[in-house]
Amino acid sequence: MKKSPLQIARQSYQPKMPAALLGQVVLREGQATQSVADQEEIKALFPNTYGMPVITLDAAINGRPNTTPVNVGVILSGGQAPGGHNVICGLFDGLKKINPKNKLYGFLGGPSGLVEGRYQELTADIIDEYRNTGGFDIIGSGRTKLEEEWQFDKGIEVCKQLGVNAIVIIGGDDSNTNACVLAEYYLQKNTGIQVIGCPKTIDGDLKNEMIETSFGFDTACKVYSELVGNIQRDANSAKKYWHFIRLMGRSASHIALECALQSQPNICIISEEVEANNMTLQDIVNQIAEVVAARAAAGQNFGTVLIPEGLIEFIPAMRRLIQELNDLLADNEEFVAMEGDDAKREYIKTMLTPMSCELYRSLPKAIAKQLTMDRDPHGNVQVSLIETEKLLIEMVGKKLAQMKGAGTYVGKFATQHHFFGYEGRCAIPSNFDADYCYSLGQTATQLIVAGKSGYMAVVRNLTAPAAEWIAGGVPITMMMNMEKRNGKMKPVIQKALVDLNGKPFKYLAEHRKDWASANSKYVYPGPVQYYGPTEVCDQPTRTLLLENA
Amino acid sequence: MKKSPLQIARQSYQPKMPAALLGQVVLREGQATQSVADQEEIKALFPNTYGMPVITLDAAINGRPNTTPVNVGVILSGGQAPGGHNVICGLFDGLKKINPKNKLYGFLGGPSGLVEGRYQELTADIIDEYRNTGGFDIIGSGRTKLEEEWQFDKGIEVCKQLGVNAIVIIGGDDSNTNACVLAEYYLQKNTGIQVIGCPKTIDGDLKNEMIETSFGFDTACKVYSELVGNIQRDANSAKKYWHFIRLMGRSASHIALECALQSQPNICIISEEVEANNMTLQDIVNQIAEVVAARAAAGQNFGTVLIPEGLIEFIPAMRRLIQELNDLLADNEEFVAMEGDDAKREYIKTMLTPMSCELYRSLPKAIAKQLTMDRDPHGNVQVSLIETEKLLIEMVGKKLAQMKGAGTYVGKFATQHHFFGYEGRCAIPSNFDADYCYSLGQTATQLIVAGKSGYMAVVRNLTAPAAEWIAGGVPITMMMNMEKRNGKMKPVIQKALVDLNGKPFKYLAEHRKDWASANSKYVYPGPVQYYGPTEVCDQPTRTLLLENA
Repeated sequence: MKKSPLQIARQSYQPKMPAALLGQVVLREGQATQSVADQEEIKALFPNTYGMPVITLDAAINGRPNTTPVNVGVILSGGQAPGGHNVICGLFDGLKKINPKNKLYGFLGGPSGLVEGRYQELTADIIDEYRNTGGFDIIGSGRTKLEEEWQFDKGIEVCKQLGVNAIVIIGGDDSNTNACVLAEYYLQKNTGIQVIGCPKTIDGDLKNEMIETSFGFDTACKVYSELVGNIQRDANSAKKYWHFIRLMGRSASHIALECALQSQPNICIISEEVEANNMTLQDIVNQIAEVVAARAAAGQNFGTVLIPEGLIEFIPAMRRLIQELNDLLADNEEFVAMEGDDAKREYIKTMLTPMSCELYRSLPKAIAKQLTMDRDPHGNVQVSLIETEKLLIEMVGKKLAQMKGAGTYVGKFATQHHFFGYEGRCAIPSNFDADYCYSLGQTATQLIVAGKSGYMAVVRNLTAPAAEWIAGGVPITMMMNMEKRNGKMKPVIQKALVDLNGKPFKYLAEHRKDWASANSKYVYPGPVQYYGPTEVCDQPTRTLLLENA
Repeated sequence: MKKSPLQIARQSYQPKMPAALLGQVVLREGQATQSVADQEEIKALFPNTYGMPVITLDAAINGRPNTTPVNVGVILSGGQAPGGHNVICGLFDGLKKINPKNKLYGFLGGPSGLVEGRYQELTADIIDEYRNTGGFDIIGSGRTKLEEEWQFDKGIEVCKQLGVNAIVIIGGDDSNTNACVLAEYYLQKNTGIQVIGCPKTIDGDLKNEMIETSFGFDTACKVYSELVGNIQRDANSAKKYWHFIRLMGRSASHIALECALQSQPNICIISEEVEANNMTLQDIVNQIAEVVAARAAAGQNFGTVLIPEGLIEFIPAMRRLIQELNDLLADNEEFVAMEGDDAKREYIKTMLTPMSCELYRSLPKAIAKQLTMDRDPHGNVQVSLIETEKLLIEMVGKKLAQMKGAGTYVGKFATQHHFFGYEGRCAIPSNFDADYCYSLGQTATQLIVAGKSGYMAVVRNLTAPAAEWIAGGVPITMMMNMEKRNGKMKPVIQKALVDLNGKPFKYLAEHRKDWASANSKYVYPGPVQYYGPTEVCDQPTRTLLLENA
């Protein structure tokens, strides 16, 4: 297989690790723990995995004796994130170091690989091909949810056949919740199969007191920031376009915020703030138009706007409209049978509440149509398909035309739109993610050989040099609370939205007026560097630096 | 001003240069030259700048005595390309080395800066801020064409005021043609003002016997290839989407070709081949659909398609349709006054020739509308605004639906679309472009102090280590022929389209079947690296390597 020079060079990169993991390791256990909320309910649901202590891995003076061989199965769950392959490499190296007879299996195509018994043994020659690479292609990923008992039981069969003693699930908040449900079930059934989770997601919304950041967030944000920076340099050179840039991140605005901290755009919308201030779409449009007008007054008819992908759902009025449309159009055969866009549009207008109707009418037609046409299998609006960057361009353009009429705006408003997501999910992991993920894999190994289950592997103190990182395990129940999902109360790991009282957002809030001014303060991060000065190659995210400061 | 760690680190990068430029330099002149075609006409139009010898710069044993101080004015013309700042830095350092009293002025905002007398002296503190940076923001660029005598005369006035003896124009084929017209005019008028050109454009279409590559092509293609590679790794991991990726490059397909050579996508369309084979849009659609179907038959419902931005204009039937629309709709008040899209559509159908009408009807409605709505100030269709990637997605989808009906296709066709252009034009220049551009600037200096005019600065032998590069000057007239522009025959530099007999295209043609197969051969170039192993950091483009092989 042909490889690029960088692919070849990266194969021999040796990830940095916490010093405690370099030799023999001993587990230190802390106090019993509690869930972050709803302690009674969570405890009742997880009698075997509730209240376990936090674990820290320390260097041991006397090594543990060689253990009985273990077989481990690993699963990649959900969307890709840079570094997934390195978690698996860390697992593999960790297992082989402890006992060369240990084996690692990969379940293929995500959680369904476990249920359907599709797997492959991961041997040294395979692993070596994937060291420090992006993508999840080593075993593939999938979005099947492990939620039902028949799935768990199927998993037992498959594990028994393979002699698998432990499963490592690499995934986001939901996948880790399910990992804990699985761990609990396997303990209740006394199967002897352990389950360990690993915190993955570029969205950055799997973090809390115990998890400083999910892996992949660093690399993805650096790729997007490279592109935002390049576009800003172009904007500042051509002085011709406003660039509206939508950034992936299903719900929370961590990615947009981090990219803003790295590149200092003229405007960055934060969904959580929009919601907290009960802003309307028009409020957002007006805010942008004001900045455009102020810069135009100084002769600067260009700029950049960062838009988090999840924005629409954080605008309370939009959320109500979408909810009404979901209720109205689910299984609505009358609507489906209707002929012509105009007839459908009129029908919808008669059925909405007055407030939602007004909002619906104010939207550009193409977007309004998108809200009623592209629906998921459950009949719901597919919010991620809405091109918010185009919606805002159109509405800001309209607002500026009004302002021009009123004499409050003189300028040109030429635009370009961008959406970045797939460009970053499978990038070659940054040194940070390569090191962090490899350490997570090695940490998971230690939890497994110590017989632990229902834990997430964690590595902390991430703004220090890697040697000083602290590895360990956190009981997944500790991060849970009860939330309503599809109408039922369920135990889930709390999703971390952008904290409006946190230092990263506060930094943005303090500086954005300056960044929006006619003297743009663009920063140009450039592409991820793997070699060269450490301040260029080994920096964690600005979010993490501010949070740990 | 806040800077990223990479911005700070790159400031101190010392570009590599041809060994001949390191110390004192002597000019070696070759034989008299001829234009590539239309020798009589070109000679008549350029009596003073025709037939001049090619110049090579050699290291001198005895240095030239310190010359009288010269003042040089530099202009950035047209679209941004990575490395423009380094040309200016090379010019500055070259001038100051020869005589610290030499001065460099930047004309602001492109050629109009010369005509309107907007300039700024570029001093060491300014220059140092822009070393090895992307963008054209040091003095700005612009698209004003220097074509008319009143502009030239205004330029003389401004130069006299400033004491400017020489102008360096950094631009593409048109700007360099105009540089030569200006040089000729200034010689005829005996103004004592020299004019030197520099070959810039990310499009890669300014190259010939004497110019191996234009600057910026290397960096821009590397940025786009990084993104294509990342998307391919995602496609290969998620196994869910066909990604249709349109790549900037106004006319020629060099960028798409180079990105294909770097990343080995499943499909890469080359406009020049489409034209040579007189292909229709439907032919292209059918070819893509066949690859999609073949991969689907092997269970691979994903892939990548690279689409050159200029494609539409290379499809003979589309070109005819666009020409008819341009003729039909220019100043057509009847059409403008017409109400409703459907009425307009019907009107157009009645006015087109049968063949063009059929093509028009076959296009997705949104695209057909785009062809008639978004027009430039001259009434012409703005081909660059047509989202060819969406056009192809829609038409391939239709074709696959037919094939499904006929039983020749079984699979899912889910898609994502991308357009990359602004992401690469202002990237931090690669080592190659940083070195090449700095050398071009130093070379221009040498041509100036030797009193030359009507030359383009060139650096050749670019696949060898920089020390072995060969610097010199080529008479611009040598690259000219006569072409019809806006109805009139004009002397212009020949634009280089992709040579279907050249090694880069042949390499693609030999390998594309393999790349399209179910065993994708994706290569993942990763981001531009500035530090680390030389094979990772200092490689020129694959195009150049194949051409110079």
